[in-house]
Amino acid sequence: MSQFVYETHSQSGILLNANENPWNLPDSIRQEIKDALDTIAFNRYPDDSYQELCEAYSQIVNIPASQILAGNGSDQHLGFLIGTFLGKGKNLLTLSLDFGMYDYYASSYDAGIIKYPVDPFSKMDVDDFIHFMQDQDPDMVLFSNPNNPTGNFLGLTEIQRICDAASCPVVVDEAYIEFAQGSALSLLDRCDHLYVTRTLSKAYGLAGVRIGFLLSSQANMDALRPSHVPYAVNSISAKIGAIVLKHADLFDEQIENIKKERDRFAMLSLQRCRIKPSQANFILIQTPAIQALTQAFKENGLTIREYKGKDYCRVTIGTPEENQIVKDVLISFDKEEQ
Amino acid sequence: MSQFVYETHSQSGILLNANENPWNLPDSIRQEIKDALDTIAFNRYPDDSYQELCEAYSQIVNIPASQILAGNGSDQHLGFLIGTFLGKGKNLLTLSLDFGMYDYYASSYDAGIIKYPVDPFSKMDVDDFIHFMQDQDPDMVLFSNPNNPTGNFLGLTEIQRICDAASCPVVVDEAYIEFAQGSALSLLDRCDHLYVTRTLSKAYGLAGVRIGFLLSSQANMDALRPSHVPYAVNSISAKIGAIVLKHADLFDEQIENIKKERDRFAMLSLQRCRIKPSQANFILIQTPAIQALTQAFKENGLTIREYKGKDYCRVTIGTPEENQIVKDVLISFDKEEQ
Repeated sequence: MSQFVYETHSQSGILLNANENPWNLPDSIRQEIKDALDTIAFNRYPDDSYQELCEAYSQIVNIPASQILAGNGSDQHLGFLIGTFLGKGKNLLTLSLDFGMYDYYASSYDAGIIKYPVDPFSKMDVDDFIHFMQDQDPDMVLFSNPNNPTGNFLGLTEIQRICDAASCPVVVDEAYIEFAQGSALSLLDRCDHLYVTRTLSKAYGLAGVRIGFLLSSQANMDALRPSHVPYAVNSISAKIGAIVLKHADLFDEQIENIKKERDRFAMLSLQRCRIKPSQANFILIQTPAIQALTQAFKENGLTIREYKGKDYCRVTIGTPEENQIVKDVLISFDKEEQ
Repeated sequence: MSQFVYETHSQSGILLNANENPWNLPDSIRQEIKDALDTIAFNRYPDDSYQELCEAYSQIVNIPASQILAGNGSDQHLGFLIGTFLGKGKNLLTLSLDFGMYDYYASSYDAGIIKYPVDPFSKMDVDDFIHFMQDQDPDMVLFSNPNNPTGNFLGLTEIQRICDAASCPVVVDEAYIEFAQGSALSLLDRCDHLYVTRTLSKAYGLAGVRIGFLLSSQANMDALRPSHVPYAVNSISAKIGAIVLKHADLFDEQIENIKKERDRFAMLSLQRCRIKPSQANFILIQTPAIQALTQAFKENGLTIREYKGKDYCRVTIGTPEENQIVKDVLISFDKEEQ
């Protein structure tokens, strides 16, 4: 049994705690989904190839559909990769601040976890990380890029250097990649043991629909595909994903909006707290008075992500109106007596 | 990596290969689902308690919702239980003919698999099974009841005897229970280490929606719940499940229809093949000329479940029209020269 418990997100208040897209699907797409329900055989198992969905994602990422595997959220793929490459006596190398589900899956497959400590407010020293990795000799490397929760982003050169130096599978979780520049997908041809996971839960506004993708070289995908759990994605989610991906333009607009709003936070001139420049759809805020700040957020109806015993919190970029409330809280907090 | 590959079902022809409900959802329920889509926050993670869905299932099974866990098909729960109770150096006891996914999950968690051999055309000798179980001392027992693919059914007394004799978790996969009489759920109060999985994929006609349930005692569920993977079921499937369960009457009618049709098969007087009396929504047909029979099914557009190297095949009970084609093939096959 996994000894690691993942706490699910609170769903009350203004939700800036789960890095979701703040906008629900527009009526026009919702109508398309309703119309498509007439074509669904609810009583039949899904088409396990998820061809329509994978073809639609292939158009977005410009990678052949044969190199794409659909899953029940990218979470499921992370579990699948950990189950595939790890087990008792094997070790996962990840970062000291990263997505909590890595611990959950490693623990459920009885694998050990090694964490490379990262200062959330500094840029990760890739040379030092590579040195640490080679020293530890893990059986799999996994990290999010952009990093959750720091918003740090490693460029392609850095990812390639890590892959070149690794002697085990390197999995890059690109859940937030649409908010950054570049993607490790462009390295798949060059890095034999590179795996990339993607999701429609963040930029594409489908957290409730649970669709993720796993991508790697053709050879790696040919090896993995037969052992993937069948019927991981239900027929309705697969159809919704395919429909939404046809409307990528809409999401491109939303993404640009979110990035602009995010970058405005980094420009705030504050004395009492630090906001880390981020390449994702959230910001990390640090202050010695973290309890007072999170209390102020709560009092203003904002639900944000707290970290027990830490001096920072994570706030998702929401709608402009929601972001304005966050800013007002920050500015008012900054003016209070210290 | 799992060394066991699960072959997904072919989806061409008249589909009698996956034990699905032959009827798609009626327009009225489909319309309810469409209306409900207006209430879905596609951009938000699901409510991880799946309260509405579990409450709806609670009404069906008369077990408190606090003892019910929703999953992405009952498959996912089987994987969860195997991951929880097994691992390297531990063994799963199952039957020599049972659902193939048990092998898949045991293999993916590096667990050993012990199989109790069952003659598909005889009733299982429970005394002998208990003797075998005690001798092998497994770490988990798992079997389907009614059995897939034999249609054999163990009554409550027999299940209780197995539970009483076992010193490890006993998991009863009741995917087809709606087509039989009685359920191990009534033993949950008495058998401390009994776990039951259920699905909406079969009797409730939602194979494409992927919803399963895990039920056990309150104490067992309290222990398991924190380590269950979060957000396993997407918001739309959860809503569809809740809607469909409100219309249980409709499915009760379909189930009665399927049972009657199934029992008519057992009454066929055939010389060349044997049909095993079944408590599920499928029948097992044995003949020394299995290749000729499966060929005849194919020529008549029927897709059925074959077993490599075996002298039997499994045929799902379909609509009355589909069943008539099956009967016609059987009767015509029976008249052919031997």
